[in-house]
Amino acid sequence: MTRSHQCGTLSTANIGDTVTLNGWVQTRRDLGGVLFIDLRDRSGIVQVVFNPAYSGDALEIADRVRSEYVLAVTGTVVKRDAETINKNLPTGEIEVQITEIEVLNTAKTPPFFIEDGIPIDESLRLKYRYLDLRRPEMQKTLWLRSKAAKVFRDFLDNEEFIEVETPILTKSSPEGARDYLVPSRVHEGEFFALPQSPQLYKQLLMVGGLERYYQIARCFRDEDLRADRQPEFTQVDIETSFLSQDELLSMMEKLVVRLLKETIDVEIAAPFQRLTYADAMDKYGSDKPDLRFGMELIQVSEIVSSSGVKVFASVIEKGGEVKVLNAKGCGTWSRKDIDDLGPFAARYGAKGLAWIQVKDGEFKGPIVKFFTPEEIEAVKERTGAEEGDLLLFSADTKKVVADVLGALRLKIGRELGLINEKEFKFAWVVDFPLVEWDEDQKRFVALHHPFTRPQDQDLALFDTDPGQIRAQAYDLVLNGYEVGGGSMRIYKRDIQEKMFKAIGLSLEEAQEKFGFLLDAFEYGTPPHGGMAFGFDRLVMLLTGRTNLRETIAFPKTASATDLLMNAPSEVDAPQLEQLHIRVAKKPVEAKKQ
Amino acid sequence: MTRSHQCGTLSTANIGDTVTLNGWVQTRRDLGGVLFIDLRDRSGIVQVVFNPAYSGDALEIADRVRSEYVLAVTGTVVKRDAETINKNLPTGEIEVQITEIEVLNTAKTPPFFIEDGIPIDESLRLKYRYLDLRRPEMQKTLWLRSKAAKVFRDFLDNEEFIEVETPILTKSSPEGARDYLVPSRVHEGEFFALPQSPQLYKQLLMVGGLERYYQIARCFRDEDLRADRQPEFTQVDIETSFLSQDELLSMMEKLVVRLLKETIDVEIAAPFQRLTYADAMDKYGSDKPDLRFGMELIQVSEIVSSSGVKVFASVIEKGGEVKVLNAKGCGTWSRKDIDDLGPFAARYGAKGLAWIQVKDGEFKGPIVKFFTPEEIEAVKERTGAEEGDLLLFSADTKKVVADVLGALRLKIGRELGLINEKEFKFAWVVDFPLVEWDEDQKRFVALHHPFTRPQDQDLALFDTDPGQIRAQAYDLVLNGYEVGGGSMRIYKRDIQEKMFKAIGLSLEEAQEKFGFLLDAFEYGTPPHGGMAFGFDRLVMLLTGRTNLRETIAFPKTASATDLLMNAPSEVDAPQLEQLHIRVAKKPVEAKKQ
Repeated sequence: MTRSHQCGTLSTANIGDTVTLNGWVQTRRDLGGVLFIDLRDRSGIVQVVFNPAYSGDALEIADRVRSEYVLAVTGTVVKRDAETINKNLPTGEIEVQITEIEVLNTAKTPPFFIEDGIPIDESLRLKYRYLDLRRPEMQKTLWLRSKAAKVFRDFLDNEEFIEVETPILTKSSPEGARDYLVPSRVHEGEFFALPQSPQLYKQLLMVGGLERYYQIARCFRDEDLRADRQPEFTQVDIETSFLSQDELLSMMEKLVVRLLKETIDVEIAAPFQRLTYADAMDKYGSDKPDLRFGMELIQVSEIVSSSGVKVFASVIEKGGEVKVLNAKGCGTWSRKDIDDLGPFAARYGAKGLAWIQVKDGEFKGPIVKFFTPEEIEAVKERTGAEEGDLLLFSADTKKVVADVLGALRLKIGRELGLINEKEFKFAWVVDFPLVEWDEDQKRFVALHHPFTRPQDQDLALFDTDPGQIRAQAYDLVLNGYEVGGGSMRIYKRDIQEKMFKAIGLSLEEAQEKFGFLLDAFEYGTPPHGGMAFGFDRLVMLLTGRTNLRETIAFPKTASATDLLMNAPSEVDAPQLEQLHIRVAKKPVEAKKQ
Repeated sequence: MTRSHQCGTLSTANIGDTVTLNGWVQTRRDLGGVLFIDLRDRSGIVQVVFNPAYSGDALEIADRVRSEYVLAVTGTVVKRDAETINKNLPTGEIEVQITEIEVLNTAKTPPFFIEDGIPIDESLRLKYRYLDLRRPEMQKTLWLRSKAAKVFRDFLDNEEFIEVETPILTKSSPEGARDYLVPSRVHEGEFFALPQSPQLYKQLLMVGGLERYYQIARCFRDEDLRADRQPEFTQVDIETSFLSQDELLSMMEKLVVRLLKETIDVEIAAPFQRLTYADAMDKYGSDKPDLRFGMELIQVSEIVSSSGVKVFASVIEKGGEVKVLNAKGCGTWSRKDIDDLGPFAARYGAKGLAWIQVKDGEFKGPIVKFFTPEEIEAVKERTGAEEGDLLLFSADTKKVVADVLGALRLKIGRELGLINEKEFKFAWVVDFPLVEWDEDQKRFVALHHPFTRPQDQDLALFDTDPGQIRAQAYDLVLNGYEVGGGSMRIYKRDIQEKMFKAIGLSLEEAQEKFGFLLDAFEYGTPPHGGMAFGFDRLVMLLTGRTNLRETIAFPKTASATDLLMNAPSEVDAPQLEQLHIRVAKKPVEAKKQ
């Protein structure tokens, strides 16, 4: 009984057709000797009917089937009576009168219903992922993921990118603390490492003259786990030669426009907003701002520096700053509502949260009395404060102010309903600093990686103020998430040496760490640069999900465990012996399990 | 100086155009003050000219460039004089008169020339793979590989397959001796394993109702190394539900036809020849026969069983057989030529190699005298022996006869020029045995894997003669190579239990080994089956290469080493400590390195 049609594709156009369907029993209802089965395949559901009037032996067989049995059925498509039409089902105007049935397989009662929106524990879903995947919302997400990969590939193929597979068994990187290692059986005492990204290989491919490379690449990072990270993740990895940053970003914008159109049928405009890192931090307190709403942070340091609020003055004196968030319309909040913001702000490092309400035409609140009328007027003008507004003040180091007000902006923006959940607001954050000061190591470290190209006009700063050098580096942000990022790379020896010097790496150390790449760069390296898209996160946002695991067929849990396969797991001693390793448990913990 | 054109695409159609090119210096020649540079990018080569008459300062700069420097040049396309046209170069009718030049980067003298067919050691090429990749033949191969992947995807997308990424960090398999293991930092003493194939996951996806899955998947096998194996390799992995073997094979044939057409513009006919495993072994002594020529092995056991050649009789009595290869036209070979076949045959297990020449209308050779005239006549008729033929006899177990004559057939076929190297001869080998007897373990073992579906008409043999059961398993062979293979899978519990019993696996053992899969199969598993294409090997054959490494951008050597990155390598003790493992070198060998 070979399938002639898919369940979900049948319509009134098929009325009168004899069809053979294959699928799973969604539900089975017995209405006085007439059996109705909702038969499900990956295309959808259709109602099939067994009736003594036309089903013969098939009725008897159908009587024994249960949920999730696998069936092949043959019958005739008929129009439903007007009163039995199911408007909730795309196939709801028809049903199939069955004359033949074959039970392809039976099924135990599944541990949860195969339907959307079921309120069950995620760990149960992960253990029975093969059943979870039957649910329409999971299938839809995986289809969209597959489609998104296709759009990336089609676009890049069309732009003459070559897809190259780079190794998974590679070398542990110099800062390889987060590398997964793989012991070698053949080479005793030696290890491969799984790549955190194909970065080195893609740069080598540019040295190799491939000019335009892409790969939908699996990457691995043995991180301390967070809810939104996976030990293995997928990135769309891209590298180009002979393109400027602007040329690359324009091309990538076209790609993203097409991605949204072809996966979720959303039209977005290009070019995207370009925001410097400095502006992003200044206005939104974040290098991945959610730009679906305004509510920018407002600098008031010079207005309040000599006010009677002592903490403002002292913070500014120590090189910090004072900024304000104008929470429009929140001036009517109760004292308790406002006080509740305190603990939230504290999570982001705030030691306190000063505020002013604009009520009955006046500034009100505990700190108002410390301001002169001129200062109040200046704050009012700077912040655009109007009747009913709430001004939230953060005074601290630049970083803490950004973190606190950035977080408050998101929280209040969300609570005020300022965010259009249907909107996809992309932007490029550009001009990232090349290096940042590491207080622990008392030296500059590369913000991205040591091959990121500085901006030409900032090269002189290597000698005077490396911390001020802007990089040709960029992130793609979407609705408050970083969904991609990259940089133009250094390709000239002299600049590379300046970079190493800036981050306190001697040429000998650099040679030891990056030797083969520096060697490669000696043989005619073209100007090159690229980026990588976080594919899992992008799919998550396109499908309106908030959990990365929903976008992955077989994800790991937050504690890096595969609940379906039960991995990782212990292995036999002989297997380890072959690999020339031994488990070295910490004595105290050895007996725990 | 933004590139306006690619070097290799310029033609007489561009005459008069001002173009800007980016690329590498292939060669530089100075002809009395006029400089000729062959500039290369990934599209090809074009000659650019620097002349005092129009190049100005550019000439002076160009004078300092050397091989593999990276240039940007601007100039005008002109027609070459008739006598200087280079017919070996696609752009040989034109050249570009340069007015501007920028040296984007310098280059050291590379360790080998960047051109095809260079006679240098492969290990040098692998160490400098980034230079090796600049060679046109490497670029062509990688382009074809990229294109082949695209054809697979386009075809499968069109057939509504969904691409799903399955985990790389997974569980060590029960027969995991060849698994690469990955110690877990978070879960002390536990290990992930890298997948030898996505087999389990793709079957779970069918249980999950995805119906049609594909993935171009990275797989890993820590094998004893052979020249034609890589520790990591790529397969196009496919699984379908509700299709019969015939339906799947037909679909795959269409895919392969399209692959050859779109990658190398070769038309092949479908359906492909289908050959049973039994026939393949019988006629060609191989389950992956090269069908570009005939020269089948000929069964003569019953003709020679009572001849005077004692070894024939005794071999047959012990259950072995005698077969003949008729090497057409080799009857004129010298005694030495024929004797030289002996050591070759011995490599495949032959204890001797009897032969008969047909010369001057007669059978000649040492064994002829042991035959009766009737036997000679019967051999002549059976083998079609004619004047000038050479009959080679192998008498041994079926396996040795197949190995010896199969190998001789290939060797002699090749030497006689019977093989059309331009031909792509695909065939399906079908009806593989389900199980084979393992003499060491004194039990049947699964020939493919324990989920391979037996043929319906052979099910009764489970009780009587499991060794005779044919499986719904198939290999795709091309020119003597296996390029793909797969099977329909068992999806019913009762048959799965018979299979486990046949291979001597108790239900408890089976549950321990395959527990989660058997559990999954309980919940309504659809009939399913699939296959995998060996992508590296397929690309190798499509590009006419004989070395798998040539098809991979960054391959490992035959000893599983990455010469470019120097991996695997030793790692720091603290890194191992974090992973809760210790290197346990064998004492004797510990000091070797």
